Amino acid sequence: MTELRTQNDDYVNVVKDSFSKQTIMHLIGAELVDVTPGFCSIELCHREDLCQQDGFFHAGVISIIADSAGGYAAFSLMRPNSRVLTVEFKINLLRPAAGHSIFAKGEVIRAGKNLSFTEVKVYVRNSNKNTLCANMTQTLACVDDTIKSA
Amino acid sequence: MTELRTQNDDYVNVVKDSFSKQTIMHLIGAELVDVTPGFCSIELCHREDLCQQDGFFHAGVISIIADSAGGYAAFSLMRPNSRVLTVEFKINLLRPAAGHSIFAKGEVIRAGKNLSFTEVKVYVRNSNKNTLCANMTQTLACVDDTIKSA
Amino acid sequence: MTELRTQNDDYVNVVKDSFSKQTIMHLIGAELVDVTPGFCSIELCHREDLCQQDGFFHAGVISIIADSAGGYAAFSLMRPNSRVLTVEFKINLLRPAAGHSIFAKGEVIRAGKNLSFTEVKVYVRNSNKNTLCANMTQTLACVDDTIKSA
Amino acid sequence: MTELRTQNDDYVNVVKDSFSKQTIMHLIGAELVDVTPGFCSIELCHREDLCQQDGFFHAGVISIIADSAGGYAAFSLMRPNSRVLTVEFKINLLRPAAGHSIFAKGEVIRAGKNLSFTEVKVYVRNSNKNTLCANMTQTLACVDDTIKSA
Repeated sequence: MTELRTQNDDYVNVVKDSFSKQTIMHLIGAELVDVTPGFCSIELCHREDLCQQDGFFHAGVISIIADSAGGYAAFSLMRPNSRVLTVEFKINLLRPAAGHSIFAKGEVIRAGKNLSFTEVKVYVRNSNKNTLCANMTQTLACVDDTIKSA
Repeated sequence: MTELRTQNDDYVNVVKDSFSKQTIMHLIGAELVDVTPGFCSIELCHREDLCQQDGFFHAGVISIIADSAGGYAAFSLMRPNSRVLTVEFKINLLRPAAGHSIFAKGEVIRAGKNLSFTEVKVYVRNSNKNTLCANMTQTLACVDDTIKSA
Repeated sequence: MTELRTQNDDYVNVVKDSFSKQTIMHLIGAELVDVTPGFCSIELCHREDLCQQDGFFHAGVISIIADSAGGYAAFSLMRPNSRVLTVEFKINLLRPAAGHSIFAKGEVIRAGKNLSFTEVKVYVRNSNKNTLCANMTQTLACVDDTIKSA
Repeated sequence: MTELRTQNDDYVNVVKDSFSKQTIMHLIGAELVDVTPGFCSIELCHREDLCQQDGFFHAGVISIIADSAGGYAAFSLMRPNSRVLTVEFKINLLRPAAGHSIFAKGEVIRAGKNLSFTEVKVYVRNSNKNTLCANMTQTLACVDDTIKSA
């Protein structure tokens, strides 16, 4: 991609601030690892209360960090005073997510004025090995933030 | 659909038992509302710790109950001694999920020997009104349960 | 859906005119069967030159009529002097599309100002039986038509 | 990916033979450019009869070559005497496909015994420039070929 231009010099703070308001991240214990223009990664350690019936990370839990990693990758490129909304995503679950943590790496593949598109790879960590366990593609909308803060 | 035949007379207990092992459901407070052959619905009340940055249900949280509603709709039709795994899903977020609860209704549209396909509608509740807020389609695999319990 | 309001009294002609410009429809022999506000159906008879390696309708050919059925269902509700573009679609191939024709029925499930969402069911016809063979969900963008005709 | 092992020494001929039976490829004029273990690319030159209403390649036409590029990437890794079937795909249309040709590059990201997963990038060519115009992710099933030829 040649078009990953930041429109917001303050994008790091804007993303961190938004992430801190995602209360679900606190509940599950996810952490924002990194954000650069058009990229974002989020990590989540295994806990016994994040699982499906076989003890693996639940597909919806994987989706939480993948959706936000892609969303913030896109948001990092958006104009100031805008908001990001997920229009849709699709996720392929390639392998059971069995490991001591998962991390999602989101990347913008097309940044348009109103719509952006991302790819998100999710890896599961075991000892020193990272294995691709899920693959998401996503569409996001950029909307003007007309909600005034006090 | 004319093909929604139960292969497991004990499907209700099998689904309830599996759902009770999904620890993420306890964490977020989701409840299995109903399961009949080829159908399953799950409800989730709003809490302040289930949100994205604007206070709406996070798309990943919506995906947790939608994925399981579709998964158990499919599982209700599967042969005894099998397990269900999500192969993939796609979700369209039609409107912000702003309301006092959301519920997901999963329905099998094709039950094959190895692969099943579902549709899941997610509604958000406000006062007495239910509004469609998300639409998922999903592919699930039926695998033989070769893990022996003690 | 309670929101299927036509904004364009001339929607039937607008859709028919656009369909007639889809040159691929002529190549494969597809026909616009019906369009009403928020709905559109397209039919395609089997030909030996529309197949994949086993003699079934190719998934991409199914996608041609499904994408356009959903697109015109959405377009029928859009404001005058607008154009419709597909943002994305996902299709599940439920069964081999083996029959003497296929038809796609598109339906709008959410009509927004800029984005619309549809579901498209594709059936394969054999003798007097119609069987669901594919299921698509789709996102479409409404963009202003700024291209002036001569 | 570390797992792209060919199971079929004759995979090139097997893929070419299958491609030659895809009659739709002859109709639209698509060409198999290359196949290596886990990869496949297909090219299609612009013709006036492959378009949607604005003169761009129709999304369904793009899907034909993308679906087959991903399918044959997966098929190249499958065991002898097997067949490949598309379970589902999702495609994001990133830009109008306006150019003198499009080509699809499919790549396997997970090759399982029964299910494989691919990514397919579609580029549109203009003069000497290639621009990413569509992104597909895909699930494929490997089934035993029990149909005997005469």
